[in-house]
Amino acid sequence: MTETPKITISHGSGGKLTHELIKTLFLEQFNAPQLAPLNDSAIIDINGQKLAFTTDSYVVNPLFFPGGDIGKLAICGTVNDLSVMGAKPLFISCGYIIEEGLEYDALARITRSAAEAAQQAGAAIVTGDTKVVEHGKGDGIFINTSGVGICEYELPGKIETSDKVLVSGPIGDHEVAILVARGGLDFQVEIKSDCAPLWDLISKILSVSNKIKFMRDPTRGGLATVLNELVENKEYGIQIEEASIPISEKVNGVCSLLGFDPLYLANEGKVVVVVSSNDAMKVLDAMKGHALGDGAALIGEVVAEPAGLVAMKTKVGGRRVVDMLVGTQLPRIC
Amino acid sequence: MTETPKITISHGSGGKLTHELIKTLFLEQFNAPQLAPLNDSAIIDINGQKLAFTTDSYVVNPLFFPGGDIGKLAICGTVNDLSVMGAKPLFISCGYIIEEGLEYDALARITRSAAEAAQQAGAAIVTGDTKVVEHGKGDGIFINTSGVGICEYELPGKIETSDKVLVSGPIGDHEVAILVARGGLDFQVEIKSDCAPLWDLISKILSVSNKIKFMRDPTRGGLATVLNELVENKEYGIQIEEASIPISEKVNGVCSLLGFDPLYLANEGKVVVVVSSNDAMKVLDAMKGHALGDGAALIGEVVAEPAGLVAMKTKVGGRRVVDMLVGTQLPRIC
Repeated sequence: MTETPKITISHGSGGKLTHELIKTLFLEQFNAPQLAPLNDSAIIDINGQKLAFTTDSYVVNPLFFPGGDIGKLAICGTVNDLSVMGAKPLFISCGYIIEEGLEYDALARITRSAAEAAQQAGAAIVTGDTKVVEHGKGDGIFINTSGVGICEYELPGKIETSDKVLVSGPIGDHEVAILVARGGLDFQVEIKSDCAPLWDLISKILSVSNKIKFMRDPTRGGLATVLNELVENKEYGIQIEEASIPISEKVNGVCSLLGFDPLYLANEGKVVVVVSSNDAMKVLDAMKGHALGDGAALIGEVVAEPAGLVAMKTKVGGRRVVDMLVGTQLPRIC
Repeated sequence: MTETPKITISHGSGGKLTHELIKTLFLEQFNAPQLAPLNDSAIIDINGQKLAFTTDSYVVNPLFFPGGDIGKLAICGTVNDLSVMGAKPLFISCGYIIEEGLEYDALARITRSAAEAAQQAGAAIVTGDTKVVEHGKGDGIFINTSGVGICEYELPGKIETSDKVLVSGPIGDHEVAILVARGGLDFQVEIKSDCAPLWDLISKILSVSNKIKFMRDPTRGGLATVLNELVENKEYGIQIEEASIPISEKVNGVCSLLGFDPLYLANEGKVVVVVSSNDAMKVLDAMKGHALGDGAALIGEVVAEPAGLVAMKTKVGGRRVVDMLVGTQLPRIC
């Protein structure tokens, strides 16, 4: 007797199972050309005006954490999904699914955070919806935000070997902050989520170089997943250097203690950039000159071989393949 | 000792408490001019191109019901919110929040329904998101859809006394279908949800008259809530005639048995139209000539007195005020 297949937590991890679900079910059924590239936003054309349109639901647990809360996160995440497509975030929708019994004060704090984040990003929350489910049928609050932006730059471009890979700062802060906020650890460490709206940094990057090939914010699944998505079924690979990847001592320490691989940790205020070799230093300097990019680094490059894979030169001089995440390190981090 | 105020099921009913929450918290914080009119979609202007933008989360229970499922509902609801603003639905986003353990087959059926409904409505699902929460932290699946449409007609217009109020067909089918699908009733009755995408009907209405003042699909809170929203703080009122309001015998029967007022029942494939008196019959004929409007009726008119209220002439010749719903008749019907 075979059991009926069921959806598991790992289907929501952003890793291998999420991708399978997207490819075998969603792309098959929602058969739109705008969906197929699987970018962070769809590019839609309305009477010749190119817009970016994106959606994300936020189910982070706990609702409040050092550096932010679900309201701020829901705005920043969607603002960033527009921004990495070269689109200036303009209009945001906000849909609440509230579990009966949520304290009004918590809802008010979350709403204020969302409003502040939108203002900071220069976007307006123009439409919303509120649903309430019975106690035990939800978990405090889930928030969906969708966003519409105007395409100011054309992305992504054609990636070529020798293109450089940059990241705007130390990785892993968001996921480790969530982990610590859940409590139950044997040690104490203060880490803030990096949750921030990136349009200002990204528009600066795009203004100094017209050779930006690709940008993405490494959220669920982290840096490793973004890079794997980039090389999948491609005639090129990516090689990164472990020693060049910025990670704070605190995040490194937590990872060592708990056996997490920082390459898979979620970030909510970082961007991975692939840029033509000639412009790499100019872009790196622009990033370093911005408050949200002062820890930026060049971490690797696009290579011809091995194609379709992400390889990493380790600190001790070895080489390993950085694969896509199969399970989940930590569920509900965004 | 006073208890901390908490969110209740009634805050999600679409009635009085939902409106209070919107006014005291959301409008206060999300301080955007596009949000303030509280229409079914925000009208946004991008380089002179007027677009409608809307969002809704769907938490209906059960997921499958006669006449539809949560996938079809999630598309129709958002398509209709764009349509009633005179906007042709173009692009839809689809965000799933899945409870761990949902059967893959259920997810596939729901996804197929959503895809079919979008195709029927002439809209494309172009962007999506999948989150999974632990068993017991959700309820099968919640779906958020947001939509972008292009404004083909300008709505709403200035409402005046003697304008007529029309509804496109019998009310209450959706909510009663959900109620019956939940089971546990002592009697048997077969009622299908009216769940349908309305753009085709609405574009027909808008093509025969340029004196349409207002349209809305009477979902949560039903006909009574839509009419109350229309007259709130206005210098006019609305008078409707109970005998003119189309209701099927089955829905009437269930309402009598269970003590529900059909005026507050949710619909998912109906539209309420306010139109200049001169054009009322022309619009009514256009509705009756469409498969989704063949049960349309003229149910009342805009009156000078009593201002700010919805009054109903009852079948027995009396008059009563039709107030906004305070609690909830039935939670999670959409």
